[in-house]
Amino acid sequence: MPVQFTPTPVQDLLPVAGVRLGITEAGVRKANRKDLVVIELQPGTAVAGVFTTNRFCAAPVRICQDHLAQGQGIRALVINTGNANAGTGAEGHARALAVCDAVAQQLGLAREQVLPFSTGVILEPLPHDRIIAGLPQAIAQLGDHHWGDAALGIMTTDTVPKALSRQVQVQGKTITITGISKGSGMIHPNMATMLGYLATDAAIAPALMPALAKRLADTSFNQITVDGDTSTNDSFIVMATGQAGHAPITSWDSPDAQALLTAMAEVSRWLAQAIVRDGEGATKFISIQIQEARTPEEARQVADAIAHSPLVKTAFFASDPNLGRILAAIGYAGVTDLDADALDLYLDDVHVATQGGRHPNYREEDGQRVMKQSDITIRVVLKRGQAQATVWTCDLSHDYVSINADYRS
Amino acid sequence: MPVQFTPTPVQDLLPVAGVRLGITEAGVRKANRKDLVVIELQPGTAVAGVFTTNRFCAAPVRICQDHLAQGQGIRALVINTGNANAGTGAEGHARALAVCDAVAQQLGLAREQVLPFSTGVILEPLPHDRIIAGLPQAIAQLGDHHWGDAALGIMTTDTVPKALSRQVQVQGKTITITGISKGSGMIHPNMATMLGYLATDAAIAPALMPALAKRLADTSFNQITVDGDTSTNDSFIVMATGQAGHAPITSWDSPDAQALLTAMAEVSRWLAQAIVRDGEGATKFISIQIQEARTPEEARQVADAIAHSPLVKTAFFASDPNLGRILAAIGYAGVTDLDADALDLYLDDVHVATQGGRHPNYREEDGQRVMKQSDITIRVVLKRGQAQATVWTCDLSHDYVSINADYRS
Repeated sequence: MPVQFTPTPVQDLLPVAGVRLGITEAGVRKANRKDLVVIELQPGTAVAGVFTTNRFCAAPVRICQDHLAQGQGIRALVINTGNANAGTGAEGHARALAVCDAVAQQLGLAREQVLPFSTGVILEPLPHDRIIAGLPQAIAQLGDHHWGDAALGIMTTDTVPKALSRQVQVQGKTITITGISKGSGMIHPNMATMLGYLATDAAIAPALMPALAKRLADTSFNQITVDGDTSTNDSFIVMATGQAGHAPITSWDSPDAQALLTAMAEVSRWLAQAIVRDGEGATKFISIQIQEARTPEEARQVADAIAHSPLVKTAFFASDPNLGRILAAIGYAGVTDLDADALDLYLDDVHVATQGGRHPNYREEDGQRVMKQSDITIRVVLKRGQAQATVWTCDLSHDYVSINADYRS
Repeated sequence: MPVQFTPTPVQDLLPVAGVRLGITEAGVRKANRKDLVVIELQPGTAVAGVFTTNRFCAAPVRICQDHLAQGQGIRALVINTGNANAGTGAEGHARALAVCDAVAQQLGLAREQVLPFSTGVILEPLPHDRIIAGLPQAIAQLGDHHWGDAALGIMTTDTVPKALSRQVQVQGKTITITGISKGSGMIHPNMATMLGYLATDAAIAPALMPALAKRLADTSFNQITVDGDTSTNDSFIVMATGQAGHAPITSWDSPDAQALLTAMAEVSRWLAQAIVRDGEGATKFISIQIQEARTPEEARQVADAIAHSPLVKTAFFASDPNLGRILAAIGYAGVTDLDADALDLYLDDVHVATQGGRHPNYREEDGQRVMKQSDITIRVVLKRGQAQATVWTCDLSHDYVSINADYRS
């Protein structure tokens, strides 16, 4: 059960002019499961992405980066679940390219116009023959109303599909933004076994796209963590088809452009937070806000230490205001000159700690009240400077252990 | 149930001349529980320690460092469980000093000759009145045969007492080394909610003691991790009473001194590994060996990434050779120029991965066979240089979540 999360009704997912999606059951790992998605883009679509920093990054990630760099105009994406094609060496690379070739051939494209994505088990050979065999059926079903099915088709241990649409006005035209994401474990910035796709029919100058993708990721997918594990396959792709017919956006300075940026950021953040709300075994959604740090890096360091502490996460699972565990995590975050006596700790509106100890007005029942909520904010004011950082995470429950102890079976 | 661990029979714990121990039930947190230990040392005992690097370090840790620095000759240690006296501000400091004062008064010492230690819940006021009230009984029972009771008296979530003795010859004299430790969660180098005490009747020049304590910790307590959380209270104390009557050791160059050093290191390592074997919910003991790294820091970075990955740890709990999770952890360890295609991964004697993928001879049943063992070695050969590191950890089980979700109740 995801935490405080209602999947978007399929009828509320809006088509994006210039984007068609086809989904099928290729039997990559299990039968009777939508596990293959093809996304076709109209010519002229501007595409950019950000990818995992894991040194063991999967073959498809390397190929995506290569194909984006070639600059021949991306026209199709192909996404399979059930197998990550990571830790598969040269053979894995060849198999991912074979899938690209098959897509290119059937859509009349060059190999370099296809971006491949895989998610699932690592270190096992990609059954590319089954994927290739499934392609004709996926391609036969290409249509612009299939966002809901596509969200289902990229799920692995997710319990709910994650998809959202927003509309905004640019130069008098109605612009649509629709995105989907998947992921619920191995979630950590830079990034997670996380796939995110954001499409809009807005026209955006290709030169703006790489920075846009990074900017959107930094305030969404790069702020989430479930277990601190950074996956081999994480990818976030932004696609602007330009089909809305307005003059291309060449800077973010105008009010219209700002409105578009805000809407894209909102959809990205919603898709990222949905991953945490559906985190493996999650029962609580926790926002960690670090304020008045000396640098953004330092703020992030403290936020991550709290977010990754199994002791903090199990205390939240238990609704136990054992808040000393948060102080301990702040203390070992690696800020070597941190003055533990200077900081303040809040749990939602409750002032928990000050001057190196419990706040004189703190009462256990206040902590208990907040801990019982399903959405909780931890706020730490370091009083060292002006920088801040926010990280979203979830608690650590029995179900996390069950899910990950059983994943391959 | 600790993993492959048999507690030392009480009759095998040897007294150390110059060390007397007294244990009582002070009711710090719970009734009918040995929770207060006093250790008295003969005059002339050389003492040194290493302590947590947590910026939220507890009041007793600061006082230990202060009293050791004063150099008046440490003559007593006082250890309570049930309350860590951490996150307790100026009042916590005053209360820890009050306990030192009471010990000093009853043993005829100066305050600065007493080292205080606390372990247990954070952020709650130390019930120093109950500790002080319990002191006369602990002191009345001071005796040199109470190592077994002392090991019981410092336990928190430990399921077994941890104590070991060794003897070695120095200059024709039989030297005894006896140590005790506690800790099973929040275990991470630098250090854990881990207390370790190592006593010997050898005579060691005081000038050698600080480096000796660090050297022993670096190859024992600083190589263990259960959950990556670094506690506010970790302390490791080495005491050399000199009562064996040989000429003091002033360098480690002689064969006798080397034998003593080896024996002390062995006891320290045993005490540290016992903590992992008794790790909260542990069902597997895992040695992580990183070889041929460019620097020791880099080797340690990779070892820690594997040791802290919840995905790796749950896979070991499930005896599931989902070894791609180990590769993923190596990949995100932060070694930015790591060549994933160059390294080799072994699980005990099984060659799992090479050239960026699964080893051609690897068979699932071989991985399965090793994963079912209760002692497992992960070996990663990075082929970048000559440095190495070893870390000992355990798996992540349902019981870890249960224990930590219930700890305060």
